[in-house]
Amino acid sequence: MAKKIALFSEGKFNDKGLGKLLVHDSPYFRIINFNLKAGQAMPLHHHDVDGQLSVTVLEGTGAFLGADGAELPAAAGDILVADIAEPHGFRAETDMRVLVTIAPPL
Amino acid sequence: MAKKIALFSEGKFNDKGLGKLLVHDSPYFRIINFNLKAGQAMPLHHHDVDGQLSVTVLEGTGAFLGADGAELPAAAGDILVADIAEPHGFRAETDMRVLVTIAPPL
Repeated sequence: MAKKIALFSEGKFNDKGLGKLLVHDSPYFRIINFNLKAGQAMPLHHHDVDGQLSVTVLEGTGAFLGADGAELPAAAGDILVADIAEPHGFRAETDMRVLVTIAPPL
Repeated sequence: MAKKIALFSEGKFNDKGLGKLLVHDSPYFRIINFNLKAGQAMPLHHHDVDGQLSVTVLEGTGAFLGADGAELPAAAGDILVADIAEPHGFRAETDMRVLVTIAPPL
């Protein structure tokens, strides 16, 4: 089942909200590419389930969002790992592409 | 437990073999950053276990390797998803940083 996806050409931006490309979904993990125009954000949220997620910045700069207003600078090559049950989010300062991996999928 | 890792500064290259940074290891997934000097490779291999993996190119160019000598061009923003039981590997044409996620970990 090996498959390759070229995120920089297949992942689209959207002026009206986050661009979202479902890269892969299986019992093992779900992989989603989000593309944010400068100023867009995935607001802080969480789910009360087991599991963890990673957020990898592929391009651009912004911030990872955490509980109690915490923000960490986010740039290409930065990865955040968190429990799904922890508050998490991200926002873009420039156009930004991120890859989110959720294991196991919700 | 949220944690951030800056792969472009923490992930090192090594003239004698692949640079390897264990980013995260949990019952949910293992995340490893491999840094390959031009010409280095992760040779084709597989493990006879359930689960899947993703290989995301963060920087540089090279190729994803598959069964029967198959090669797919690999550049920043490209992701390969495969069963762990399928032959998989990658090689670098320029210095290349990749992020491998394995779910569940072996």
